[in-house]
Amino acid sequence: MKRITYIQHLSNWEKEFNFFIDINIRFSETDMFGHVNNVSPFIYFEEARIEYLKHVGLFSDNQIGKSIPVVADLQCNYLEQIFFGETIKLYVKTNAVGKSSIDIHYMGKKENGNICLTGRGNMVNVDAASGKSLPLTKEQKEKLLQG
Amino acid sequence: MKRITYIQHLSNWEKEFNFFIDINIRFSETDMFGHVNNVSPFIYFEEARIEYLKHVGLFSDNQIGKSIPVVADLQCNYLEQIFFGETIKLYVKTNAVGKSSIDIHYMGKKENGNICLTGRGNMVNVDAASGKSLPLTKEQKEKLLQG
Amino acid sequence: MKRITYIQHLSNWEKEFNFFIDINIRFSETDMFGHVNNVSPFIYFEEARIEYLKHVGLFSDNQIGKSIPVVADLQCNYLEQIFFGETIKLYVKTNAVGKSSIDIHYMGKKENGNICLTGRGNMVNVDAASGKSLPLTKEQKEKLLQG
Amino acid sequence: MKRITYIQHLSNWEKEFNFFIDINIRFSETDMFGHVNNVSPFIYFEEARIEYLKHVGLFSDNQIGKSIPVVADLQCNYLEQIFFGETIKLYVKTNAVGKSSIDIHYMGKKENGNICLTGRGNMVNVDAASGKSLPLTKEQKEKLLQG
Repeated sequence: MKRITYIQHLSNWEKEFNFFIDINIRFSETDMFGHVNNVSPFIYFEEARIEYLKHVGLFSDNQIGKSIPVVADLQCNYLEQIFFGETIKLYVKTNAVGKSSIDIHYMGKKENGNICLTGRGNMVNVDAASGKSLPLTKEQKEKLLQG
Repeated sequence: MKRITYIQHLSNWEKEFNFFIDINIRFSETDMFGHVNNVSPFIYFEEARIEYLKHVGLFSDNQIGKSIPVVADLQCNYLEQIFFGETIKLYVKTNAVGKSSIDIHYMGKKENGNICLTGRGNMVNVDAASGKSLPLTKEQKEKLLQG
Repeated sequence: MKRITYIQHLSNWEKEFNFFIDINIRFSETDMFGHVNNVSPFIYFEEARIEYLKHVGLFSDNQIGKSIPVVADLQCNYLEQIFFGETIKLYVKTNAVGKSSIDIHYMGKKENGNICLTGRGNMVNVDAASGKSLPLTKEQKEKLLQG
Repeated sequence: MKRITYIQHLSNWEKEFNFFIDINIRFSETDMFGHVNNVSPFIYFEEARIEYLKHVGLFSDNQIGKSIPVVADLQCNYLEQIFFGETIKLYVKTNAVGKSSIDIHYMGKKENGNICLTGRGNMVNVDAASGKSLPLTKEQKEKLLQG
């Protein structure tokens, strides 16, 4: 595997994930090359990220309307082709917490345990009314780092 | 071609279209069968429908927020496979206007003139605030039937 | 509910469904109107249809490559808005079997039991090598009608 | 603008782009936050990348089937929200050429000239038959660096 800038030691990085959701690959997510199109993992990242943020209490119904988590950047490394009919476990963790932003990491694993996707991206906590970044509370930061 | 319930005489039906937009088929819109996935034409229908409604003055910026056109039903017949790299002309016309609804028809044509897609669907004019159907004005109906 | 041409008696029609899959609505499947975009149900129909065809033994791994089920037409009626965070049960049944085609019906139900989507569409059994329609075997027809 | 790791000097980086395609934002590419969903730019990147590779002669019809360009990684920075109805110019350039890989950069500009998206990603030239990476020819490298 080629070096990925946001992963220092793969085995340590891999162990730090706890939360995951199952993704069943859909036919419409493949392309004419016969495998999952490169756009589709970002759909999976979003689904897994939102479930993760709900899990740590940061995307609850009453939360929406006050502050919203906005994606600042996203990246994905495609380590193995993924095929229709496969189920992958998509793991999410908080890598770092800033004043009003979160660096979230992603790992996709096939049923045989192979890592097929890795990724990361910053979310910024934004005040829904003003559109400005909103500092995360101490409580929110703790939840994220325990998550 | 098998009989399509919403088309009486194909050659007449075909002649009644004037408005169209060009659709460049994207790679991500194909699937592992090597052709355009059956979901993708509904993306094209939506893009063409909105351009058409703008063209007849029913989806203008100041219109949104007061009344919104809501899709009540949609159907598509797949007459020929479509492939990545092709450009199709997607035609739209108003087939019939009701009290607060519009029956919109669609036709997709390949560069060789073959009809590859046909479709139709009802839009209902809905009051954005109340969520109730909103009668179309006489002026709106005229625009649609001229469109 | 407005009359839907492919449903004779709604209560009978509804009772004939057995097979279903759960669909978790994804954030990326919504649009700026705040609800599920009208394109997304066709993604759900495809996922449910393929699971159903696998269930009745018509989309198995060794089946692909010999004959493939090709979508001839699709339609969807949108009875209730669907929102991010909801889970719907998407039911599939065989409504009728032709020489080489299947008329498949769809029903989407919310957690409160309300029908939010109905749909139907013809699939044609196509020989992968020749591209011509391939008659369904007696065994396949029986599986479909029991399914 | 926060520092983006793959951009050294923004004004120089910006000047090195020549090739672009127009992207008309589709309604179905928005989400319930009212703007373009974070997944959609990767659809635009793919469309622009393929047009660019065709432009430099690396994704021609006879090319497919021999070697295929496979996406190894992708990243995107979201600098400004994008809305339905906007048209953006999506620029593509070759940032660097390796033995069998290409580092491609992306820039999205609004009609007012504001940069709304930046991105990059590696493509690997893969032999379609063996699945192994295939060195780029001297001619291909020259085309890319002129592109």
